[in-house]
Amino acid sequence: MNIVLLGSGNVAAVLGRKFKAAGHTILQIYSRNSAAASELAYELDAESTNYKSTILKTADVYIVAVKDDAIEQVTEEIYLPGKVVAHTAASVPKEVLSRVTSHYGVFYPLQSLRKEMTRLPDVPVFFDGSDEHTKTVLASLARSIAPVQALEAGDDDRQKLHVAAVVVSNFTNHLYTLAEEYCHKEGLDFKQLLPLIEETALRIRTVSPKAAQTGPAIRHDSETIRKHLELLHGHPQLKNIYLVLTESLQTAE
Amino acid sequence: MNIVLLGSGNVAAVLGRKFKAAGHTILQIYSRNSAAASELAYELDAESTNYKSTILKTADVYIVAVKDDAIEQVTEEIYLPGKVVAHTAASVPKEVLSRVTSHYGVFYPLQSLRKEMTRLPDVPVFFDGSDEHTKTVLASLARSIAPVQALEAGDDDRQKLHVAAVVVSNFTNHLYTLAEEYCHKEGLDFKQLLPLIEETALRIRTVSPKAAQTGPAIRHDSETIRKHLELLHGHPQLKNIYLVLTESLQTAE
Repeated sequence: MNIVLLGSGNVAAVLGRKFKAAGHTILQIYSRNSAAASELAYELDAESTNYKSTILKTADVYIVAVKDDAIEQVTEEIYLPGKVVAHTAASVPKEVLSRVTSHYGVFYPLQSLRKEMTRLPDVPVFFDGSDEHTKTVLASLARSIAPVQALEAGDDDRQKLHVAAVVVSNFTNHLYTLAEEYCHKEGLDFKQLLPLIEETALRIRTVSPKAAQTGPAIRHDSETIRKHLELLHGHPQLKNIYLVLTESLQTAE
Repeated sequence: MNIVLLGSGNVAAVLGRKFKAAGHTILQIYSRNSAAASELAYELDAESTNYKSTILKTADVYIVAVKDDAIEQVTEEIYLPGKVVAHTAASVPKEVLSRVTSHYGVFYPLQSLRKEMTRLPDVPVFFDGSDEHTKTVLASLARSIAPVQALEAGDDDRQKLHVAAVVVSNFTNHLYTLAEEYCHKEGLDFKQLLPLIEETALRIRTVSPKAAQTGPAIRHDSETIRKHLELLHGHPQLKNIYLVLTESLQTAE
């Protein structure tokens, strides 16, 4: 397909690379940030522009990959009748694009995407469309970059997936951050925890997290928990999280 | 080296395989569970016994890989003068073994180990010993299975490492469990989150978790947070965790 990307940030960059790797053509990058637009355009063999009036009308699909609260402003005064136009936000209803075309939709990549990534990770895609044509086009685009993880999801399911994504990614990353700070303050090397972190994430491919649960909380080892809380005396933020999650683990059984 | 393992559970099994893969000989498995002992002994080409009196006196190192609160009982009436004897527990002082030999120590693998593992993960090892001889022997054994992650750590540091391990492994796994339950109740497929979970864990090899933090909490996106709390209405346990971790994220900046 011929694709125009609106946006030049993390999502635009990684989706652009995935599209190109799947054999699609990126015709153009539109972005208010002209430096970022031309840099990404150079990488993807595309044109770039920061004028809405020069957005090409010849693409099959337009992907609006900008921050949630910028979608409305970025697409203001852009009219693409007959074209399929989709944004990439989990939490924004597809109707935000209904002024742009009658074939509007969503193309939500359920992954943490960063421009700096050197390898392209697996990216499950949840799509939605205002009509069958839009859904068919976006389904085909999704399957081209995510053969086994391209699924239709309405506004509600997408928001719920986003809640789950926050829990397994933003919150786990916060636990990593707190552990890194703790190690730093205690003179320990956080890097020594990386094999454990990776094993914990990778093993749930084959065993459910509930079945894989170990540790002092789940075995009600109150002596170890007591020692740990003592060791967390000078770390009130982590101590509070330790207490809350230990309690949650013990009620989850 | 010639090694005797005391214990036949997860830690004994995986350490035994790592030792064997590194060229050591497992002479014998001692375990109160004779079925598990003979099964593991068969896999590792070792003898097995469930009688303390028949524990071989010819090994260089004895590794006591049993639960924290079983170390004392398992080693009761075992005397191995002149031999190096180490347990594998993070939270137990090495002195628990001082009745067994004068060369006692600790051999703590900082990893989540399960018998069922098909591939052997990287296992950082933290060792300690009652004297230089014990330290030298355990350091050499540790380096043989963990060339770049064999470090000396006293009782205090080992306990602190265990706190950090609980945070990055037991607690993140609990978040995975809560997310899986949420997906299940909402008719979503938890498996779709696996690429995101893996990327979140793997990216911190190259970027610090603090720098990698994203999501509605860190960008103070109160509208999205409000929507998420609404969606968590029927999930009080996860809603509470969502609130606590969002607040922690916002104070951590």
